[in-house]
Amino acid sequence: MSVIQHSTPEQQQRKVQHFEDEPLNKFFNSVVLPLEYDNEMAKVKSLVHRVINSTTSKKVIFITSGGTIVPFEKNMVRFLDNFSGGGRGASTAEYFLEQGYHVLFLSRKNSLQPFVKNLMLHETNFFSFLDNNSMHCNHNTASTPKEQVHISDKYYDQVSSLFNKWKKYIDSGHLERIYFQTVGEYLYYLRGISMELSILKKNAIIYAAAAVSDFYIPLDHMAKHKIQSNNQSLTVTLDPVPKLIKYVVSTWAPHAFTVTFKLETDENILGSKCLMSLNNYKHQLVIGNLLSSYKDCVVFHTPNKAPQTICRKEPIHGTDKYVPAHTIENDIGEHLIILHDQFIKADN
Amino acid sequence: MSVIQHSTPEQQQRKVQHFEDEPLNKFFNSVVLPLEYDNEMAKVKSLVHRVINSTTSKKVIFITSGGTIVPFEKNMVRFLDNFSGGGRGASTAEYFLEQGYHVLFLSRKNSLQPFVKNLMLHETNFFSFLDNNSMHCNHNTASTPKEQVHISDKYYDQVSSLFNKWKKYIDSGHLERIYFQTVGEYLYYLRGISMELSILKKNAIIYAAAAVSDFYIPLDHMAKHKIQSNNQSLTVTLDPVPKLIKYVVSTWAPHAFTVTFKLETDENILGSKCLMSLNNYKHQLVIGNLLSSYKDCVVFHTPNKAPQTICRKEPIHGTDKYVPAHTIENDIGEHLIILHDQFIKADN
Repeated sequence: MSVIQHSTPEQQQRKVQHFEDEPLNKFFNSVVLPLEYDNEMAKVKSLVHRVINSTTSKKVIFITSGGTIVPFEKNMVRFLDNFSGGGRGASTAEYFLEQGYHVLFLSRKNSLQPFVKNLMLHETNFFSFLDNNSMHCNHNTASTPKEQVHISDKYYDQVSSLFNKWKKYIDSGHLERIYFQTVGEYLYYLRGISMELSILKKNAIIYAAAAVSDFYIPLDHMAKHKIQSNNQSLTVTLDPVPKLIKYVVSTWAPHAFTVTFKLETDENILGSKCLMSLNNYKHQLVIGNLLSSYKDCVVFHTPNKAPQTICRKEPIHGTDKYVPAHTIENDIGEHLIILHDQFIKADN
Repeated sequence: MSVIQHSTPEQQQRKVQHFEDEPLNKFFNSVVLPLEYDNEMAKVKSLVHRVINSTTSKKVIFITSGGTIVPFEKNMVRFLDNFSGGGRGASTAEYFLEQGYHVLFLSRKNSLQPFVKNLMLHETNFFSFLDNNSMHCNHNTASTPKEQVHISDKYYDQVSSLFNKWKKYIDSGHLERIYFQTVGEYLYYLRGISMELSILKKNAIIYAAAAVSDFYIPLDHMAKHKIQSNNQSLTVTLDPVPKLIKYVVSTWAPHAFTVTFKLETDENILGSKCLMSLNNYKHQLVIGNLLSSYKDCVVFHTPNKAPQTICRKEPIHGTDKYVPAHTIENDIGEHLIILHDQFIKADN
């Protein structure tokens, strides 16, 4: 699991090409490289190695999840953030793991994680699932009844089922995780990981579900210290973040099946925004969703086809809200796997 | 624990006074009242009742913790946030609970909580503390060895010690928790809770450790829908948030011991900012800290005394990073309790 595969000469060449693209070069110089970049990319290389050598399935999905932050100061006190708990990405990871895919999960630090997500409805405090009432247990040394902290009876089945799945996929190397915080860190990883996955050609899905900021403050425009208030208004000007997804499709991973999301709050503009995205980036799928209903219905936009609305087949919760639910990500996953299989089998 | 104490006529009168203060009235009308406000305030009233009837200690500390967010849109997609994990507030709560105080913990949703905080260094994923290797246990039914999910041996002592403390203070009613997200919600609670605690006079400490935004966007200036990017710059103008702490001191809880914090990144302005705050609000203590060293040293500024620097007495971590640490909040708490006792005993 710890074998590190080095970039191919072809990939190195692509990196060089990238650095000759002036606007991109300028953007990456205006944000901070992730601290652990090289270590994290070594994990990606190991995953690619495992996929190539897998005797079961060669398919992999690279899921990005959670919101990106935009620092206002170099010594960061304030930052702009994007609404996203990371639920869509986490649920999608669960579904694809269960279908045999390897999953590379790039998520915002502290956002929802696969499986453990289903326990986070309850105040996000894991003490809610523990108890210390009397039980018989010779787990440590004593075999007489004693006060022992353990998973409470009420949640035991739920916690153990989720934990066993989590552990299985971590131990087997099917689930690999990397974290980001800022929009700059996110885009460094989007570029690096796409390039590493490109060797897998059509077997890779790039599923860009993270809520990426459209705006940022370049390092050379950023205040060094906390901006002072002085009881006056504050006016902040943010630059547009370049749309790097077009480089994913054209250059970094041109053979992958690329999926992007479009979240809007205004129903009237959602369809046209999705079509515009598909036309601009020439990728395989845009999934449109509204903030008010993103857990219930989404719309699939694919080239040369009518949009397809997909809604959740079953209610979210059973009688107990901790029973793992049928989420809309199951339905999204089911449709996406069909599209991915058609894509792999197609000639071009 | 569920007894609800109604506001006294004196408190009602104070509410009316408040609503006649025009700038304040305008501010509270420009932000959204917390959804669960009445239910949450009933919890505060119960706590006050418990403190009044306590046979051990009548002292209470109201701790605010975590950063406030500032929505950019009514259908919120983007928001401004303040750097704060909530560690200072959570550790301070632990210290004061251990010293016999009742603690009202008003914290940002998903920020660090007392005791469980010490387990959050490790990726914030509680599955890290579980294991499913074989053990003997007749917790459910079987007394033969079986795969059973349980707290891992490595972390058992740590988790059980923290959980037992947490449960003790929750069950005894010494720890009461309320959550906020936006700066508007925070200030509604700061006002409401201060007024409810005012009946406890000098026995109450108000410890405002939350990182409150200096700026916000009033409802009538806010976009309804997600701001569109169109690959252009975005200019945002934010209004100053009124400094409500002066109303805490002058009107809402005039007899309480009020503590505020000043966080800066520039060492050269920290001292003068602390003194300015003390002069403006006429409260009891400003604790100054720098972003680069806030876990190591702070400076206490009190009226008519030279500033006092307080540094952590012991290193943060022992050999095992999960052993509960001696944090600087222990030192802050030790000094604060002395000041609070002197304050209670003073004539005026």
